[in-house]
Amino acid sequence: MKLNIAVLPGDGIGPEVIEQAVKVLKAIAMEFNHIFTFETGLVGASAIEKTGDPLPEETITICEKADAVLFGAIGETKYDIDPNAEIRPEQGLLGIRKVLDLYTNIRPVIAYDDLLNKSSLKIKQIKDTNILIYRELTSGIYFGQKELSEDGNTASDICEYTRFEIERIAHRAFKAAQSRKRKLTLVDKANVLASSRLWRKVVQELAPTYPDVKVDYLYIDNAAMELIINPRQFDVILTENMFGDILSEEASVIVGSIGLLASASIGDKYAMFEPIHGAYTKAANKGIANPIASILSAAMLLDHFELHEEADLIREGVDKSLKLHITTPDLNTKYNHVTTTKVGDFIEDFINNPEETNLN
Amino acid sequence: MKLNIAVLPGDGIGPEVIEQAVKVLKAIAMEFNHIFTFETGLVGASAIEKTGDPLPEETITICEKADAVLFGAIGETKYDIDPNAEIRPEQGLLGIRKVLDLYTNIRPVIAYDDLLNKSSLKIKQIKDTNILIYRELTSGIYFGQKELSEDGNTASDICEYTRFEIERIAHRAFKAAQSRKRKLTLVDKANVLASSRLWRKVVQELAPTYPDVKVDYLYIDNAAMELIINPRQFDVILTENMFGDILSEEASVIVGSIGLLASASIGDKYAMFEPIHGAYTKAANKGIANPIASILSAAMLLDHFELHEEADLIREGVDKSLKLHITTPDLNTKYNHVTTTKVGDFIEDFINNPEETNLN
Ligand SMILES: CC(C)[C@H](C(=O)O)[C@@H](O)C(=O)O
Ligand SMILES: CC(C)[C@H](C(=O)O)[C@@H](O)C(=O)O
Repeated sequence: MKLNIAVLPGDGIGPEVIEQAVKVLKAIAMEFNHIFTFETGLVGASAIEKTGDPLPEETITICEKADAVLFGAIGETKYDIDPNAEIRPEQGLLGIRKVLDLYTNIRPVIAYDDLLNKSSLKIKQIKDTNILIYRELTSGIYFGQKELSEDGNTASDICEYTRFEIERIAHRAFKAAQSRKRKLTLVDKANVLASSRLWRKVVQELAPTYPDVKVDYLYIDNAAMELIINPRQFDVILTENMFGDILSEEASVIVGSIGLLASASIGDKYAMFEPIHGAYTKAANKGIANPIASILSAAMLLDHFELHEEADLIREGVDKSLKLHITTPDLNTKYNHVTTTKVGDFIEDFINNPEETNLN
Repeated sequence: MKLNIAVLPGDGIGPEVIEQAVKVLKAIAMEFNHIFTFETGLVGASAIEKTGDPLPEETITICEKADAVLFGAIGETKYDIDPNAEIRPEQGLLGIRKVLDLYTNIRPVIAYDDLLNKSSLKIKQIKDTNILIYRELTSGIYFGQKELSEDGNTASDICEYTRFEIERIAHRAFKAAQSRKRKLTLVDKANVLASSRLWRKVVQELAPTYPDVKVDYLYIDNAAMELIINPRQFDVILTENMFGDILSEEASVIVGSIGLLASASIGDKYAMFEPIHGAYTKAANKGIANPIASILSAAMLLDHFELHEEADLIREGVDKSLKLHITTPDLNTKYNHVTTTKVGDFIEDFINNPEETNLN
């Protein structure tokens, strides 16, 4: 298969982790006789620095021409601490999500057996957890009108949802549940928010179309607790943009490190793959960033094109690296941890020669 | 001291847990020669049932005349599952918060030594955690304009904050930090929301007034993770209404049961005290509801009137009940747990005779 992949490394640790993901994709191409080409674009703080724009036109063109986008991370302390900044790195990420209409963000949360002891949670609490979070990604309070009064004393954001926006991601979440444990949990705050009540109504209306799926409803505050005390109760979680942001980062505590969580953002025409972690400027260029989230995002990219065997091989490589403790310090404080590049190298080697690496 | 206390038991387990709190307050009055009088008002689903109004005028009058309000819980499944309901129990709770202008909600999160093993988190993770969450309670997306389009296909909520609203709670949070470990963490989503940027700006402007307080800023998604992986890093957390709702219920996993978390909602003129848990209709009238959150809320009420010795005695009684495993099933699954009433009785006895109960 020929795949033209747009690569947007972004800021902080973005470039170094994406480098590993690209390395792994190249190894897959070699091994399976695919032709993957890569074109790099600017985004985020680094794009602002070079062009004044967090999402230059050229980057959009690169993404639109590509079969898929591989995204690193954006953000920089300078902007975080300046509430007056009008141009911000995040606009690059939110902009590309919107322009490509990537309305379904899928975030798997899987408790790896080899990492159970890395979690802050008790092992018996998390063992066998396997959740798929479906987060709406192109609407809600992220994209509603924002206002700051002229005197600077009043600020507001609008959270708006339409039936259309809810239906299209809900159908996908229901279908995902059908191919899994057939349970869907809608997380909202319908006891307080009008937008949440529309979510609940639409999901209730769609539910009879998927009679084999059991539907549950949880308020976000309650879900934030249940996710920790009983994560195994969840199969597919469907939720709006902001709640999905919060729940999925919270869910990283189950997995043991946020450096392991991958995601796919799927529209009708385009698809983007990105780790859920941020740019961690402080960790940049030290070789300590965990590339697994990016590498697993690359695996999700392959899955998207039905290259499941290839994706599985990447995941096997990841599993092996975890089993052998060939990991960055976030997962391996006590013993000898390795660098970002070394983790990538190991998985590359594994792909080139699964049997041999097996004997290590 | 003479205190006239308005009691709003509400729905579900509300009445049974509040009964224990009142019992305990009566014991305190006896023991310390105070005169506490109680006047009960309707609120929530039970108020809707009897008057059609989740917050009858009469209830407001009772609260306004009182020195403090003791609140149970509101909510009922019937309304939860009906996104079209226009009259909802939650309007009673939100209404009373607004009418009494209870803008500062204080939620202590304390890891009890005797309960460390009840938490879903590893003991070494949570030991010595002591956090005070300052949640803004009368503004934000809870109270902004809500709209549902005529065709029912678009719904929206506005999250609005003014400098005034942020400043008044921020000053209180800074002062609380000064009397504790002198650390304040503002939780917001300033990389995306205009309202959050106003929060960050105002807190940055106030910070120099409290030079002895170290100020930290965290995005809500990140905070939801940090709260689990490193809760001891927090002293006072300051945040807006919705984020406070989510974080504080999530924080209950540190304590071991949401049935332990109390709160105080303080305005300039009025003050209300309530457990942070909900109405749990399913658990009602079974004697299994944990009354500790309500009893600790009563202790916060006493603290509010500088009756610290009295409040401490209640807390000692609570500690003792936990140490002796005289607890409801949420904390005591394996051995013989006791009923809601029995927990109240034990703490009442302890107050009447601390020495003797000590020998038990
Ligand atoms: C960087 C930020 C704007 C982004 C978000 O909030 O969506 C990130 O937290 C994520 O989850 O992808
Ligand atoms: C019942 C509900 C409206 C309420 C809230 O969201 O504020 C509750 O969750 C709380 O935290 O007191």
